[in-house]
Amino acid sequence: MCEANAYLYETDGEKLLLENVDKVVPQDDGILLEDIFGRRQLVKARIRELALVDHKIILEKL
Amino acid sequence: MCEANAYLYETDGEKLLLENVDKVVPQDDGILLEDIFGRRQLVKARIRELALVDHKIILEKL
Repeated sequence: MCEANAYLYETDGEKLLLENVDKVVPQDDGILLEDIFGRRQLVKARIRELALVDHKIILEKL
Repeated sequence: MCEANAYLYETDGEKLLLENVDKVVPQDDGILLEDIFGRRQLVKARIRELALVDHKIILEKL
């Protein structure tokens, strides 16, 4: 499985938001994350970087 | 390896842009894609959706 973990970038490190993320869908007011179990989380953030080989989705606050 | 393929969404289908993408970095003027070999491509687009289990990065034109 090639899901990734989503983190929120902060100046003092990265905070884990959601594990096993499958879908990432930008919305007008943030980023919708959906994990492989169908659990969803809307985060008021934008994508800072994806590093897929490292299984990382890094978001930053809007 | 958990790289993905990047596609450009068009009304008549999806056009393959780059295979084996590792890094995806939004820029002011588009999206920078980098594959696992370090090859880079800057696309004047934004992220429409990521479907990681399907290894798909779907972009749409700006």
